[in-house]
Amino acid sequence: MNVSLQQAQVVIAAAQARARELGVQAVISVLDAGVHLKAFHRMDGAPLGSIDVATGKAKTAVLFGCNSEDVYEYLKPGAPAPGLELSNGGLMPFAGGMSLRNADGVLIGAIGVSGGAVPQDRLIAEAGVAALGA
Amino acid sequence: MNVSLQQAQVVIAAAQARARELGVQAVISVLDAGVHLKAFHRMDGAPLGSIDVATGKAKTAVLFGCNSEDVYEYLKPGAPAPGLELSNGGLMPFAGGMSLRNADGVLIGAIGVSGGAVPQDRLIAEAGVAALGA
Amino acid sequence: MNVSLQQAQVVIAAAQARARELGVQAVISVLDAGVHLKAFHRMDGAPLGSIDVATGKAKTAVLFGCNSEDVYEYLKPGAPAPGLELSNGGLMPFAGGMSLRNADGVLIGAIGVSGGAVPQDRLIAEAGVAALGA
Amino acid sequence: MNVSLQQAQVVIAAAQARARELGVQAVISVLDAGVHLKAFHRMDGAPLGSIDVATGKAKTAVLFGCNSEDVYEYLKPGAPAPGLELSNGGLMPFAGGMSLRNADGVLIGAIGVSGGAVPQDRLIAEAGVAALGA
Repeated sequence: MNVSLQQAQVVIAAAQARARELGVQAVISVLDAGVHLKAFHRMDGAPLGSIDVATGKAKTAVLFGCNSEDVYEYLKPGAPAPGLELSNGGLMPFAGGMSLRNADGVLIGAIGVSGGAVPQDRLIAEAGVAALGA
Repeated sequence: MNVSLQQAQVVIAAAQARARELGVQAVISVLDAGVHLKAFHRMDGAPLGSIDVATGKAKTAVLFGCNSEDVYEYLKPGAPAPGLELSNGGLMPFAGGMSLRNADGVLIGAIGVSGGAVPQDRLIAEAGVAALGA
Repeated sequence: MNVSLQQAQVVIAAAQARARELGVQAVISVLDAGVHLKAFHRMDGAPLGSIDVATGKAKTAVLFGCNSEDVYEYLKPGAPAPGLELSNGGLMPFAGGMSLRNADGVLIGAIGVSGGAVPQDRLIAEAGVAALGA
Repeated sequence: MNVSLQQAQVVIAAAQARARELGVQAVISVLDAGVHLKAFHRMDGAPLGSIDVATGKAKTAVLFGCNSEDVYEYLKPGAPAPGLELSNGGLMPFAGGMSLRNADGVLIGAIGVSGGAVPQDRLIAEAGVAALGA
């Protein structure tokens, strides 16, 4: 079960609207449940460095079926999986990646956002997730 | 000078409409003049293999400022640049990638399409390019 | 808008003169605003390891439009983006990379320097940036 | 024994002058005998695709101590080493790469040129080699 293009477009449109409200130029990336790119928008003025970061956050979220920042709990100093961030070509274990689930709770993909401060990226991603459920 | 997000969305919408007319499930990728991803849509049912092919065609077009298939003239048997396809992390020297230029003819990016037969991919890319000029 | 070859040569010449004053054998790399190599000099005696470090610092600066060491503020222990250094094929978040801007403040590229102690690399990069504005 | 920065600058200046005479916007790359980048100039207007091609030609020349096009004799249809072009991260076995040797004939590096037609790239590289010997 994968996110459809129509769903991905709804997610991106809502995220982009939230980014504009916040005054953030963001990169917004949507991956499917197989970790493959489904849809992608880079707003004018977003840093080039955010392309890889946004997709990396979405990758982190879909690989483990959680929010990207949740992965930090496993690899932070003293936690049981030091170095986990080096797996899978590099994880991005901080906020802005969120898994997408259907009405039954099945993982269908993830959204990743980068371009603002980390809490802003998280708010933008949340707007995308909320639009999917609406 | 780079393609704007609004321009990229116009290009993708036109290409996607043409793909639907042709009954093709396509991946459509738009890069800027610096070879960085600007916008991307994968239609439902498109082969996963087309993700990299579509972006590779766009890369080929923007790297050399031409259509992706034009690059084949340099590397085909007997041509002066055998092996050129191995450069730049792998070129995709067949139709479906086309450069995007502004009204002054300046290179601002490229579109790459994959998912149908090669001539179909070319028609879909052409629809995207035409929409930019319209 | 990208740094011209003439500008890149002015930047490198000034940086190299500063390196000689400091007794440092440096690698000096200039990227354009699209993160593509524009000009590069490796002074005789510079460590081979500095080739990738210098270009990595310039990449870090242009990807985020700041100095390379500024990126450390986001990823250092306790900061909001742990693991950011793993993005974009590996960042170099310490001094020696500086963005290049035109008279209007537009990002046109970056300089990256490696070969000396980190504060020396920073001084050499500053000399390059200063020459661009002169 | 490696090409010095001063020698690399002489080689690049001569190649660049020849490129201007020919009306070609070229990328000119000089590697040392250990296949590491020594100096690099990208002329304004050169295709981005030429960055990797120019350095790839120089790599091909220094890896085998010959001109880049000489390597084609080993891998062309019917020759004894089919697929050799896939080694070393991808060879560029066509003209524009030439080895650099000191007065005793010792290999000290290579020049690689891309941006014009293949015979033009060869003429530009030859000008660089000639300047080293002068």
